Amino acid sequence: MNTLLRSIRLLAAVIAVLLIPALVSAQAKPAAKAPAAAAQVQTGPGGWIKEFGTMWTFDAPPMEYWKGRYGFQPSKEWLEHVQLSAVRIPGCSASFVSDNGLVMTNHHCARACITAASPKDTSYQEAGFVSAKLEDEKKCTMMYADQLISTEDVTGKIRAAVTSKKTAEQVEQRDKAITDIQSACQSGSGLVCQVVTFYQGGKYSLYRYKRYNDVRLVMAPEEGISFFGGDPDNFTYPRFDLDLTLLRVYENNQPFKAPHYLKWNAAGAVDGELTFVVGNPGSTGRLLTMAQMEYLRDYAYPLQLAGYKAQIALYKELVAQSEANKRLYENQVFGLENSQKAVTGYNAGLIDKSIMARKAAFEKDFRARIMAKADLAAKYGKSWDVIAAAQKELGSFANAAAFQGFAGGSNLLNLAAGLVRLPEQEKLVDSLRLPSYRGSSFARLKAQQTMNIPIDVAMEKKLLALQFMRAQQSLPANDPFLKIALNGKTPAEAAAALLDNTTLTKVDARKALLDGGAAAVAASTDPLIVFARAVNPMATKHTMRAAKLNTTVSANVELVGQAIYAAYGEIMPPDATFTLRISDGIVAGFPYNGTIAPYKTSFYGLYARSAEFDNKAPFKLPARWEAARGAVDMTTPFNFTLTADIIGGNSGSPVINAKGEVVGLIFDGNIESLPNRFIFTDEVARSVAVHTAGLTEALKKVYGASRLTTELQAAAAKK
Amino acid sequence: MNTLLRSIRLLAAVIAVLLIPALVSAQAKPAAKAPAAAAQVQTGPGGWIKEFGTMWTFDAPPMEYWKGRYGFQPSKEWLEHVQLSAVRIPGCSASFVSDNGLVMTNHHCARACITAASPKDTSYQEAGFVSAKLEDEKKCTMMYADQLISTEDVTGKIRAAVTSKKTAEQVEQRDKAITDIQSACQSGSGLVCQVVTFYQGGKYSLYRYKRYNDVRLVMAPEEGISFFGGDPDNFTYPRFDLDLTLLRVYENNQPFKAPHYLKWNAAGAVDGELTFVVGNPGSTGRLLTMAQMEYLRDYAYPLQLAGYKAQIALYKELVAQSEANKRLYENQVFGLENSQKAVTGYNAGLIDKSIMARKAAFEKDFRARIMAKADLAAKYGKSWDVIAAAQKELGSFANAAAFQGFAGGSNLLNLAAGLVRLPEQEKLVDSLRLPSYRGSSFARLKAQQTMNIPIDVAMEKKLLALQFMRAQQSLPANDPFLKIALNGKTPAEAAAALLDNTTLTKVDARKALLDGGAAAVAASTDPLIVFARAVNPMATKHTMRAAKLNTTVSANVELVGQAIYAAYGEIMPPDATFTLRISDGIVAGFPYNGTIAPYKTSFYGLYARSAEFDNKAPFKLPARWEAARGAVDMTTPFNFTLTADIIGGNSGSPVINAKGEVVGLIFDGNIESLPNRFIFTDEVARSVAVHTAGLTEALKKVYGASRLTTELQAAAAKK
Repeated sequence: MNTLLRSIRLLAAVIAVLLIPALVSAQAKPAAKAPAAAAQVQTGPGGWIKEFGTMWTFDAPPMEYWKGRYGFQPSKEWLEHVQLSAVRIPGCSASFVSDNGLVMTNHHCARACITAASPKDTSYQEAGFVSAKLEDEKKCTMMYADQLISTEDVTGKIRAAVTSKKTAEQVEQRDKAITDIQSACQSGSGLVCQVVTFYQGGKYSLYRYKRYNDVRLVMAPEEGISFFGGDPDNFTYPRFDLDLTLLRVYENNQPFKAPHYLKWNAAGAVDGELTFVVGNPGSTGRLLTMAQMEYLRDYAYPLQLAGYKAQIALYKELVAQSEANKRLYENQVFGLENSQKAVTGYNAGLIDKSIMARKAAFEKDFRARIMAKADLAAKYGKSWDVIAAAQKELGSFANAAAFQGFAGGSNLLNLAAGLVRLPEQEKLVDSLRLPSYRGSSFARLKAQQTMNIPIDVAMEKKLLALQFMRAQQSLPANDPFLKIALNGKTPAEAAAALLDNTTLTKVDARKALLDGGAAAVAASTDPLIVFARAVNPMATKHTMRAAKLNTTVSANVELVGQAIYAAYGEIMPPDATFTLRISDGIVAGFPYNGTIAPYKTSFYGLYARSAEFDNKAPFKLPARWEAARGAVDMTTPFNFTLTADIIGGNSGSPVINAKGEVVGLIFDGNIESLPNRFIFTDEVARSVAVHTAGLTEALKKVYGASRLTTELQAAAAKK
Repeated sequence: MNTLLRSIRLLAAVIAVLLIPALVSAQAKPAAKAPAAAAQVQTGPGGWIKEFGTMWTFDAPPMEYWKGRYGFQPSKEWLEHVQLSAVRIPGCSASFVSDNGLVMTNHHCARACITAASPKDTSYQEAGFVSAKLEDEKKCTMMYADQLISTEDVTGKIRAAVTSKKTAEQVEQRDKAITDIQSACQSGSGLVCQVVTFYQGGKYSLYRYKRYNDVRLVMAPEEGISFFGGDPDNFTYPRFDLDLTLLRVYENNQPFKAPHYLKWNAAGAVDGELTFVVGNPGSTGRLLTMAQMEYLRDYAYPLQLAGYKAQIALYKELVAQSEANKRLYENQVFGLENSQKAVTGYNAGLIDKSIMARKAAFEKDFRARIMAKADLAAKYGKSWDVIAAAQKELGSFANAAAFQGFAGGSNLLNLAAGLVRLPEQEKLVDSLRLPSYRGSSFARLKAQQTMNIPIDVAMEKKLLALQFMRAQQSLPANDPFLKIALNGKTPAEAAAALLDNTTLTKVDARKALLDGGAAAVAASTDPLIVFARAVNPMATKHTMRAAKLNTTVSANVELVGQAIYAAYGEIMPPDATFTLRISDGIVAGFPYNGTIAPYKTSFYGLYARSAEFDNKAPFKLPARWEAARGAVDMTTPFNFTLTADIIGGNSGSPVINAKGEVVGLIFDGNIESLPNRFIFTDEVARSVAVHTAGLTEALKKVYGASRLTTELQAAAAKK
C-alpha cells in the first residue's frame, strides 16, 4: 500500500537538496547567530576533517587516516577486490555475494523488478518470492548492474579544453569536453563511461563501468517484513526490517561466474568491529557555504515544513470524516509525515548551534587558507561574500516570491497560468524564458494542456483555499496579490469563486485557448484565466529575479568547490555523486530516548514490536513469519547500527569487515543521522543494516531457501 | 548494586524543588523572553485548567470535568471504596488487593523491608523472595501502612486562630493551631492525624489515618527484573520492569480482613481505556510564578547541571584508570547521570517556549482575575512583582554566591568552615543565625566536628580542585575569592596546598579548635582554617542576603497560593502534598524516536532487550527468568503507559479501571513526563505501570506463586 511513499525513503534526501531557492518561507525567522564559543574543526589522523565525513573514492583511499585511526592498511588487491565486488543498480547499491553471480541488494531497491516478475494473480511484493531452483529465477526487465572497472583523472583534459573568457562559452566548452571524453571511452569498448564532477568542479574523473543487462529475481521477502514498521519506523532504530532482495547476474543465459565477490560471513557484525560500507551515496551538501545553509534554515526549510504541516492537517481532517476518505487520503498523510520527518531531520543540524559553530569554524579556516595565497585569493577569495549577498537578496523577497504566484494549491490554476504564459514565453529566446519553460520543457508544458487528466475539483478548492490562507497569514494585509486573490472574500470563498465557474476542467476549453494564443487568452473571461493574467506579472518578476541570483550562486559555488580542492586536496572526500565510495565505521549502539539503543536488534524484538501493536499494520507479521515463530532462534541478531557515513543511494550497500567479508546490508539511517546531510557527526548518528546472521536464519528457517544459503556458504568457503 | 541510587528515582523530584536559591549558577544566561504568540490557557469540561493537571483530592472530586470529558460519573460509594482501598507507606503508595490484607506496591518502595527480611547468607534483594505459605511471610520492621479514613476542612478554624498583625506571630499562631487540631484529633482516637496545607495556605484540611503497624513481606522479585535496565532505562519507556512487592497487613497476628480492597483484573489495561491512579504524589511546582520558574531556568538548574557535568567527567576519568577505581566510583557516575537526566528533564519544560508561553498566559489570566476584585487586588495584587523583584535580586549575585564560599568540594573544608563559624554563630540569637545553624541544627553541626568519619584526602583534593576550577571559569579574574583561593596557583596546586598540610583530618585537632572557641580559631595557622577565616565574611554576607530574599519569596508565595484558591476555587487541584489523590488518564502510546511507542510492552520485548545487550548487566536476566523462557506466553503485556498525572510518591499506586478493578501498578514516568513537574502536558508525557496480565503471568509461570494468584482471583470473584 505504500508503493508511492516507499520510494521517498533514503532518496528523499536527494530531493531536499535540490530545493529551488524560489520556494521560500513566509515564516522565516531572523538568523540565529552561531555562539561566540570557539568551536573547533574536528580533525583526525592524516589530516582528516570530521565534518566532511568518510565517503572515500577508490582512487584516493585515505591510507594514513585508516592506519592512524584503526591501524588498518588494506592492500591494493583488497581495495580492487572490494571495488569489483560492488555494483550499482538504478538508484541503489548492490554487491556480488557468490561466484555464481548472486547479487545482494535491498528489497526497496528492486520494487520494479519484483512487481514486473509477479504473475497476474499474485503480488510478489505482498507475498514474497523464493525461487526453488535456478530455472525459477525470473528476468527483471529494466534492471541492470554497473560494475566500476576503472577510473581516470581527466581534470587536465577538461581544463585544457576550456579556453574562452566568457562564462557561457566556458560552460559549453566544458560540457563538450565531457561528452567527447565519454564518447571516446564508450566507442567500441562496450563499457558505460561517465565523467564525474567532484568538488563542484575541483576535479573531474572518468568512470568506466561494465554493464550487466541480464539480471534475474532470485528471492524477495514480503513487503510486510522488508518494510516492517512502515512509515512510522522509517528513518528510525531500533528496527526490524528484512530489507533484502537477492538477484542474479546472467551472461549468455548462464549464471555469471563472478571473479570478484564478497564472501558471506554468517556470524555477522559484532559490537565494536571495524566495518566498511561500499556503495553509491547520492547527494550531500557538505560543501555548502554558511550563507547557503542559513538560507535553507531560515527560508527554504521553514517554508517546506509549514507547507507539510498545513497539508497534513488538511488531509487528517478529511481522513477523520469517513472510511472512504480514509482509503483515499491516508497514504497522503503517511507520505507527507515521512517528508516532514526527513526535512525536520535535515533542519535539525542547521538549527543546532554547536553543529553550525563547527561549520563556521571550518569556513573560517578554509577562507584563511585561500587568502594566504595570492593566486588562490584572487581566484576564489570573493566567492563566499558573493554567495552570501545573493542569498541575502533571495531572502529579502522570499516571502513575496513564495506566495505571490501559482505555487502550491490547484492543478487547474497551474494549467491556467500555463495558458497565460505559453504565448508570452514562446516569443522569447530560450535563455530569456522562465527557467521551467526552457529547453524541452516548453513542448512538454504545451502538451500537458491537452491531456485528459482527472481533476477532483472539490479537493482542488480545499488546496487552493489552504494556499490562500497561508498567503493571508504570511503577507501584509495590503499586499497586491492578496487584493487580487481575496478581494474581501475568505480564502474558501475566493477559491470557490475561481474553481466553481471555470471551464478549464474541460480539455476542449483549454485547447481553444492554447490554439487561440495571446489574443484568446486576453479576451477570456474565465475566472481562472482572469486571475492568472493579473498575477502573472508579479510572479514572473520574482521568478526571473530569483533565477538570476541562483545563477550567481551556482557559478560561485563551483569556485568554492575548486577552492576546497586547491586548499585541502583529497584530505576530505568530495560530496556524494552517486558513484562508488568506501566509508569506514564502527559497529556501535548509541544514546537514545534517555537510555541506550543496543548495537543490534533480535528476532525477539521483531516479535515483540508486532505483539506490542497487537499485530496490526504496519506491524503485522507475514504468514511465513507467524508460522516460523517456533522454528527460529529468537536471539539471532536482526538489524544493527554502525558509524559509517551513508545517504540516499547507499541503499543495498554491503557492510564488510576488515577481511572483506560481508557482515551486513545497509538499508537506512537512524533519525539522528539526518543532519549528516550537511555536517558529518557520529556521536548519535548511525547507519542501519540488516545483520547477515539474521539474513541467514531467515533464509533457512523462514523461507526454506537452503539452496541459497548453501550457495553463499560454499562460495565463502572457496580459497 | 544500585542501593543508593535507586532511591533517587521517582523521588529525586522532591529534592529538586527544594533547591535552595543560594545555589545559583555562574553560567546563567539572560532570560529568554516567552514568544509574543498568544498562547492559550488550555481548559476543559467543568472549567478544568490543563496546565494544573489532574491530581484530584477525594474531598473535591471533579464531577463535572469527569462527566464532560469521559462521561464518567462515579458514585459516592465508588469514591469511598477506592479511597479506603488505598494505603500510604513510607515514601510511597500502595493498595489492598485482597480481603485477606494483601497489599501491592513497588519493589523499590519496599527495599528496607526486603533487606531486613533477608537471612544472613542470602540477599532477597538479589535473589527474590516468594513465601510458599502464609507462615513463611516475614515481618517488615519499620514498615507501616496508613489508610485515609476521613478529611475535614479546617481552614476556618486556623484562620480564626490567627489574630496578630505581626507576620512572625501569625506564623506561630498558625503553627500552634495546626498542632492543637492534630493533637485533639489523635488523642484517644488511635488515629494518625495530619493537617495538610493546600494551595500554599489557601486551604487547610485535617486528614485522619488508620495506621497498620504489622506489615509482612509476601513476595518480592529479584532486583535484576524489578529494576531491569537499571539506571540507563530509568525514567524511560519502552520498559520491562516487574517493579512489584506484595506485602500483607496483619492485625492480632492474623491477616487483616480488609473490608475494602481493589479487585484483581488479570486481563489488565487495554489501549484507550479510561483509568485512574490512586496514590500520594509528593511534590509539584505548578503554582510557581513565572519569576520563580525563570529563576530555576536561568540560575538554579544551569548551576546544578554544570556541577553534574563537571563531576561526571571527573569520576569517569577515575573509572577509566583502573578496575579498582571502577568498583569504587562507577555507582557515583550512574547516580550523577541519573540526577542529570532528571534535572535536564525538569529544565526541558522551562526552556520550552511554548510551555512557558502557556504558563505566562495562565498567569496573565490569574492576575487579571485578582485585579478585577478590589479586596483581592489589595490583598494579593502586588505579590507577583514582589516575588519577581526578589528573584531578580537573587539572580544579581547568584554567580558570586555560588562560588565565593564553601559549597561543593571538600568535606574537610566544610569542617573548617564550621569551626570558624560555630563560635561566631553561638553568640547570636537563633533568628539572626545563618539558616543552616538555626534550631536543632546548631547542636548537630557541633557534634559532627568530633565524629570520626573516614576522609579520602586524595579524592577531596580532586573535588576541591574541581570546585576552584569552576570558580575560576565563572568569576572575573580580579575576584577577591579567587585571590584568596588561588593566589597565583593552579586549582590543583591550591587544593593540594590546603589539604596536604591540614591537621583537621584528625578528630583531636578539630576537637581542640572546637573547645578553644574563637580565640583558638583566630590563632590557628592550619591552612584550611586560615582559608576559611578569610572567605567566611563574604560567604556569610551572600548567605544572609539570600536568606532574607527567600523569606520575602516564601511569604508572597503563600499569598499567591491563597489567591489561586480565591480566584479559581477547586477547579484546579492543589500542588502535590504526599497525600491521597486520584488522577484520571487514558491508556495510550505516544510519538517517540521519530516513530510510535506502543501502549504496552511484552515478555518478548524483555527477552529481546536482554538478548540485544548480550544479556549483560543491567540487562541480565535473573536465573528464574532464564529458566521460564519456554514456559511464559511471550505475547503477554508487561509494562504499559497512560496519561495519568503522577510524580515521586506515586510509586506503588494502583491503576484502576472505571469499575474500580486494578489493571496496573505505577512505577515510573517516561522521560518526556519530567517537565510535568511545572506544567502538566499529555501530548507525549506518560506514566509507566506494570500490567496486571504481566504480573499474573510472572507470579504463576516464573515464581510458581499460584497461592497468591489464587488468592487474588478468589478475592476478585467475591460479590
